[in-house]
Amino acid sequence: MNHKLNLDKLDYQIIQEMMANAEISYADLGKKLFVSGGTIHVRIKKLEEVGIVKGTRLSVDLKALGYDVIAFIGIYLEKSSLYDTVAKDLRKIPEIVRLNYTTGNYSMFAEIVCKDIQQLRYVLHDELQKIKGIERTETFISLDESFARNVVVTGE
Amino acid sequence: MNHKLNLDKLDYQIIQEMMANAEISYADLGKKLFVSGGTIHVRIKKLEEVGIVKGTRLSVDLKALGYDVIAFIGIYLEKSSLYDTVAKDLRKIPEIVRLNYTTGNYSMFAEIVCKDIQQLRYVLHDELQKIKGIERTETFISLDESFARNVVVTGE
Amino acid sequence: MNHKLNLDKLDYQIIQEMMANAEISYADLGKKLFVSGGTIHVRIKKLEEVGIVKGTRLSVDLKALGYDVIAFIGIYLEKSSLYDTVAKDLRKIPEIVRLNYTTGNYSMFAEIVCKDIQQLRYVLHDELQKIKGIERTETFISLDESFARNVVVTGE
Amino acid sequence: MNHKLNLDKLDYQIIQEMMANAEISYADLGKKLFVSGGTIHVRIKKLEEVGIVKGTRLSVDLKALGYDVIAFIGIYLEKSSLYDTVAKDLRKIPEIVRLNYTTGNYSMFAEIVCKDIQQLRYVLHDELQKIKGIERTETFISLDESFARNVVVTGE
Amino acid sequence: MNHKLNLDKLDYQIIQEMMANAEISYADLGKKLFVSGGTIHVRIKKLEEVGIVKGTRLSVDLKALGYDVIAFIGIYLEKSSLYDTVAKDLRKIPEIVRLNYTTGNYSMFAEIVCKDIQQLRYVLHDELQKIKGIERTETFISLDESFARNVVVTGE
Amino acid sequence: MNHKLNLDKLDYQIIQEMMANAEISYADLGKKLFVSGGTIHVRIKKLEEVGIVKGTRLSVDLKALGYDVIAFIGIYLEKSSLYDTVAKDLRKIPEIVRLNYTTGNYSMFAEIVCKDIQQLRYVLHDELQKIKGIERTETFISLDESFARNVVVTGE
Amino acid sequence: MNHKLNLDKLDYQIIQEMMANAEISYADLGKKLFVSGGTIHVRIKKLEEVGIVKGTRLSVDLKALGYDVIAFIGIYLEKSSLYDTVAKDLRKIPEIVRLNYTTGNYSMFAEIVCKDIQQLRYVLHDELQKIKGIERTETFISLDESFARNVVVTGE
Amino acid sequence: MNHKLNLDKLDYQIIQEMMANAEISYADLGKKLFVSGGTIHVRIKKLEEVGIVKGTRLSVDLKALGYDVIAFIGIYLEKSSLYDTVAKDLRKIPEIVRLNYTTGNYSMFAEIVCKDIQQLRYVLHDELQKIKGIERTETFISLDESFARNVVVTGE
Repeated sequence: MNHKLNLDKLDYQIIQEMMANAEISYADLGKKLFVSGGTIHVRIKKLEEVGIVKGTRLSVDLKALGYDVIAFIGIYLEKSSLYDTVAKDLRKIPEIVRLNYTTGNYSMFAEIVCKDIQQLRYVLHDELQKIKGIERTETFISLDESFARNVVVTGE
Repeated sequence: MNHKLNLDKLDYQIIQEMMANAEISYADLGKKLFVSGGTIHVRIKKLEEVGIVKGTRLSVDLKALGYDVIAFIGIYLEKSSLYDTVAKDLRKIPEIVRLNYTTGNYSMFAEIVCKDIQQLRYVLHDELQKIKGIERTETFISLDESFARNVVVTGE
Repeated sequence: MNHKLNLDKLDYQIIQEMMANAEISYADLGKKLFVSGGTIHVRIKKLEEVGIVKGTRLSVDLKALGYDVIAFIGIYLEKSSLYDTVAKDLRKIPEIVRLNYTTGNYSMFAEIVCKDIQQLRYVLHDELQKIKGIERTETFISLDESFARNVVVTGE
Repeated sequence: MNHKLNLDKLDYQIIQEMMANAEISYADLGKKLFVSGGTIHVRIKKLEEVGIVKGTRLSVDLKALGYDVIAFIGIYLEKSSLYDTVAKDLRKIPEIVRLNYTTGNYSMFAEIVCKDIQQLRYVLHDELQKIKGIERTETFISLDESFARNVVVTGE
Repeated sequence: MNHKLNLDKLDYQIIQEMMANAEISYADLGKKLFVSGGTIHVRIKKLEEVGIVKGTRLSVDLKALGYDVIAFIGIYLEKSSLYDTVAKDLRKIPEIVRLNYTTGNYSMFAEIVCKDIQQLRYVLHDELQKIKGIERTETFISLDESFARNVVVTGE
Repeated sequence: MNHKLNLDKLDYQIIQEMMANAEISYADLGKKLFVSGGTIHVRIKKLEEVGIVKGTRLSVDLKALGYDVIAFIGIYLEKSSLYDTVAKDLRKIPEIVRLNYTTGNYSMFAEIVCKDIQQLRYVLHDELQKIKGIERTETFISLDESFARNVVVTGE
Repeated sequence: MNHKLNLDKLDYQIIQEMMANAEISYADLGKKLFVSGGTIHVRIKKLEEVGIVKGTRLSVDLKALGYDVIAFIGIYLEKSSLYDTVAKDLRKIPEIVRLNYTTGNYSMFAEIVCKDIQQLRYVLHDELQKIKGIERTETFISLDESFARNVVVTGE
Repeated sequence: MNHKLNLDKLDYQIIQEMMANAEISYADLGKKLFVSGGTIHVRIKKLEEVGIVKGTRLSVDLKALGYDVIAFIGIYLEKSSLYDTVAKDLRKIPEIVRLNYTTGNYSMFAEIVCKDIQQLRYVLHDELQKIKGIERTETFISLDESFARNVVVTGE
């Protein structure tokens, strides 16, 4: 796939650096990678055009904002054919920030971010349990996030 | 907690908008939220100072870059007292992008991003299995990410 | 929360002492904690008014009364949306002394106190199984209660 | 067993009433049960002598005191022969308020009362995980206690 | 219970001996236990009258008869309220020699004796699966019976 | 196998009848099966000689004798190579009446007969847990034995 | 069974050799097994006539053809009585190359061969999940096939 | 991958046909696919040279040969780092015909072909259990193989 995109080592370095910190100026990043700021500019344009770079986002400390509870939810459906309908309903719950369709035990695997146990209880009992087609859920509460970081992107 | 920070509705709106798109100019964001660009500037400064805003990051389409396989790994340890040592070893594997200490079945819960099944096999068999203290792992491969988004932050 | 209540060390000491033994006279408890009996009286009044102290209860040796079997019951529901209805029905069974809505494997987690295996069988087979919405139950019988005690309350 | 104790219906009524509220005066309880206050006094003496009644205890609203998190912990041991040693170590952790030796999945089944997720994390990671002989734990956090009450004691 | 039956050590010895071998003559058994054959006769009569001894049964080597496969079947029901109906249906399948209502994972626990895997397949697929109310079964095939014997009965 | 034994329909009928009741006289059984008592005698001799019939055993009502608790125990070993050693140790515990080596979840599957929960606790905690090589056990207590009977033996 | 077929050591040797390589000439195989090519010919004829040998098949390296993903799928049915209907539906999905009815956890056990994760997702989500009667599936992806070979056939 | 191999529709058709039946003559296969026998010959040569076709193999009815028991074995290791050593030991057991390293519950997943339950018992108890590093195995016996067939290979 990426052979089609024709990315070289510099492209990967730029992506890696800016995934960690997008506020660096083109000039500074250029210095760091031994190219001109203009080269950086050209490359980022190209990466945006091919759809690899999709913009920049604010990085926020959710704990500092009072969001204390991260939970992972394994969801069992009544019938596996209900996946799409239930996924649509889950999308309406703002506390659910991620939904994956995974191999293994569960029909679906969701991630929830809440302020406290009371809000989690509300989401599980008053929102999630009302959704038709969910047989049962299994909740894993994160007691500690040891680390969360970007993958090291490479062209190899 | 956030009462100490004294955030008002505007702060939350700014955070929400910029978590989705950090490239908007202060002037444009101000217009959208019916305040001046200067007000936006002041607020973001404050949010940075109290440690809520930690910078901006490039948003990248990993699939487009050839990273096709996202997997979640439940890890069972030989003894639960080995948590810290094993966490330190896992941090050295660049493909592991997240590690949580969760309630429930597993001692630890990791997320891996790989280019293909072969790389996943390498990470599991040649890297993870070599770590002392891991009894057994259970891998859930994401067949599809239905959605991944920011939590809606509010002051309530 | 407790900062609102403005409890000090003495309040916690009184609570701790009287959770273990509520028959001690205010005078004796005062002596033990180096304050007057009147102070104890005032504090307990306050604790009752703010709703922390809810009265005293007889402590009974259930084994001595012939209640030999304590069992924990994990309950799976047909659909998780049936929680409230089933909880209402479970409340009508006097042998069920506690019901929790927990994260993890089970939809609900109950505790049963019975005189013998025959009564447990009656409760499970003739009462619990008749409740609509219960798919399956998993019973853990306590072979021995190693200890059961109060939490040590502190203001920290 | 209780036939040896020779309890009659009145004894059971007294126990039941005072398990709910131990502050009622002998006179008032007598009136409620159609006997004299002196009869109540004699009966309670007897129940104390045979070891059925073990005193009175303060009933406290733990939530109001800031104890927000109740968790049940299934504990797997490295070898089942380690039960007694591990039980002794668990008894030293004040947050663990109950420990049962149960049939079923787990080697031991504990109950923990904490102020918040951070304290739970501390108990699990810094205290429980340090105990030799524990292979792995499984934590169920109570999102809601639907009810908790006394068993209805009867002589039948 | 047995105190009502007033069994003494001799009764237990007789039961134990004859559970292993019921063909011994009263005279021989008397000699072995240092009493007269008449005493043995009287005791067995009494044990039959109180319903403890229910007759004698032929002990047969099922393997020698070609019954090669012993299997244990955990049965999950669609709803636990279906226990009685399903139990009635299972009783009609002659290969099912035992059915227990147990605590733990399964709704019911059955034992099957078959000549070979083909017959087991027939019982599971053509008989058991046709029964309404069975959600799923889990089969454990006995590869070897290490031992099967009588409990040692005692009066203690 | 049974073709070697050359059993005919009559042999199977005799076995079936006497597995249920071994006290019937040869004459009575002969009448029931339309042959002479002498024929019955000859056949049983033959069945004993080829090792199919192994004697008669007293059939006892264990509940009536005070044996109230039947439990099934799934045993996990530390290493599966310890099977033979552990089996030898289990044989020394008289309450364990049966031990199978089964496919499926458990390394071994045992059956225990006890008088009450206290004796079960003793067997599990003081006997079974002391055996080296046992990692963990899972106990299913039989709340009710719906039926227990002989297999219907046939020559087909 | 095979005693009816009357196979001797040579038959087994021929089968074994040709299961690995069916292209060897009768003459060469004869030389290897110290018999004439004609003998080989006669034997294979016989093995074909009794239905043991069913032809020869091309042995293909599926990985080389781009089939990168082998997955095993445990299937839970809504009711076990739906086995036959669901089996018929599964047969219509060309990626499913094998279906077994097994003892243990799952109602059915399937094997899937796909080109990549995307095709697997399609088979699971768009084909398998549409089948009526499937409650839930559990997918094990093969990260590596350590070996796959023929059983060593023998007459013992 | 296959784009490197430059296979066209005819190549896939030839592979598909000969995976089902390799005895067809080049002439007959050519007729069926509307090309000359020589074309077939050239194509198969090419497929052999690039390593896609690896020869032909005898297709044998194992049931007819008396191999009645197919079993799947999930293997748990003491430590996941023992994978390679245990795989080497498993390869020495001829009854194990396949070994996969899979995501999900088990460390390894094996397939066994045996003549009967006795041989399976021997392989599990006397061979597999002797291997160092295996903690526990879980055996699923195939009661029926609903189907086993080739994948439909295509160039898409």
